Amino acid sequence: MLVSRLAVIGVGLIGGSLAKALRLQHQCGEIVGCGRNVANLKQAVELGVIDHYTHSMAQAVENADVIVLAVPLGTIRPALKEIRSFISPNAIITDVGSAKGCVVEDAKLELGNLLPQFVAGHPIAGAERSGVSAAQADLFIKRKVILTPISETNPNAVQKIKQMWEICGAEVIEMNVEHHDEVLAATSHLPHILAYTLVDLLANMETTQEIFRYAAGGFRDFTRIASSDPQMWHDICLFNKEPLLTMLEKYQSHLQMLTQAIQSENSNQIKELFMRAKTARDQFKG
Amino acid sequence: MLVSRLAVIGVGLIGGSLAKALRLQHQCGEIVGCGRNVANLKQAVELGVIDHYTHSMAQAVENADVIVLAVPLGTIRPALKEIRSFISPNAIITDVGSAKGCVVEDAKLELGNLLPQFVAGHPIAGAERSGVSAAQADLFIKRKVILTPISETNPNAVQKIKQMWEICGAEVIEMNVEHHDEVLAATSHLPHILAYTLVDLLANMETTQEIFRYAAGGFRDFTRIASSDPQMWHDICLFNKEPLLTMLEKYQSHLQMLTQAIQSENSNQIKELFMRAKTARDQFKG
Repeated sequence: MLVSRLAVIGVGLIGGSLAKALRLQHQCGEIVGCGRNVANLKQAVELGVIDHYTHSMAQAVENADVIVLAVPLGTIRPALKEIRSFISPNAIITDVGSAKGCVVEDAKLELGNLLPQFVAGHPIAGAERSGVSAAQADLFIKRKVILTPISETNPNAVQKIKQMWEICGAEVIEMNVEHHDEVLAATSHLPHILAYTLVDLLANMETTQEIFRYAAGGFRDFTRIASSDPQMWHDICLFNKEPLLTMLEKYQSHLQMLTQAIQSENSNQIKELFMRAKTARDQFKG
Repeated sequence: MLVSRLAVIGVGLIGGSLAKALRLQHQCGEIVGCGRNVANLKQAVELGVIDHYTHSMAQAVENADVIVLAVPLGTIRPALKEIRSFISPNAIITDVGSAKGCVVEDAKLELGNLLPQFVAGHPIAGAERSGVSAAQADLFIKRKVILTPISETNPNAVQKIKQMWEICGAEVIEMNVEHHDEVLAATSHLPHILAYTLVDLLANMETTQEIFRYAAGGFRDFTRIASSDPQMWHDICLFNKEPLLTMLEKYQSHLQMLTQAIQSENSNQIKELFMRAKTARDQFKG
């Protein structure tokens, strides 16, 4: 059995799905959940996702050999501060945040001599749904999980977290922290910002009811990610701020170029951009 | 039988699907297809979408009681010019273009005393696929078709085209030309531009192969429309230029506002925008 006692701090879609998958694979002894929302935690017990729960992070991590922080990016640092002195000497700590620079920074500031046991991680498997009711054991099958160990990280800790995700069916990749944050800003954070912006713009227009009435499948797909959790995406904006702002600047300048091509009716430029994009998108098997 | 001889100018996804649906409902006698691509036209005959084909638009429209122009926006005017003197006195002409102001303008310039028989139309049922091989009889079921008659349009002609689309399973709505073009610029044309721009931006970045490798489901959905036909969308950009530029300007200013909120870490502003967008998107049943 890979994990004797798993502490899941934040029993939502990701934390809950991880617990479910490990339990299904008989790779986990006891599972304790921790959070603030009693109804959600009770539901997690009823659904068999966790064995029991506590509101005390200190209690949750005591005697745990693996601790998973599945909380919004903005609460990682206070959580680490709170659990620091209750963590078992050999426990491994990981997280599931969508940005890694900020999390590694938090770990450096809070974990002291436990830093080598912290493995920053990011399962690329989210959804617009959230909460434990959306958790599913197969969420990570064939999904990628990126781990971003630093020079201080204990290779054995990395190995164990890698195994944990592989048991859940994921493909695990190691990457450096800065590169992770740049790649995710481009492929995930920027698209979310663009979709939120479009839906909010249209929702503010006078004829909203009518506008949405004539929207079709393309619009539905394009804006699906605007149903994602506002708090989580707020945190991502602030905690992956610099890579995201860099991408936003590039995007705005590219969009401005296309706008000018339309303004000046530059047929070739418009058509070439659309053709390049279609070729790239047709090759993408996401 | 609603149509005795149907002339389909442009036997692609839309023209082909319309022909298939009318044939399936036994509401169409003869169906003649017209286009330039021999392979596509032969395939259309083999698939039973059309009865026969010609490369001559004049021949195609002769004796037709309903003429459907299912060609890119940029070729509507030359097509009308070419068929004008071969159209039967009682024939009804319609189109399926994604913008209507330009088409109505073309009709006014080219159709002379046949203008009352022209009914501008737009079935909101596209897809990223194109060509007759993608045509399907059920493409329009529960889809909206917008007709934009003008003061000169004969109400009987509108009635007949309305019936034609209803037979295909569509819900038909009448709207004024300018309003159609504004609504579609907001809900369809702008999202396409945004998706093309994002994919092209990422495809131009050094680490493209890697970037696409870590893109997940949200990215896939968001960028699906960037697989759409470049020629068709090029035409839409130029032929619905003003409403699209208006929307692009609004979008850019909204995106700039959010960018500044991220820059200055204005938590409330970011969270409120995301929450408004999520609420609007969750209510949308596309």
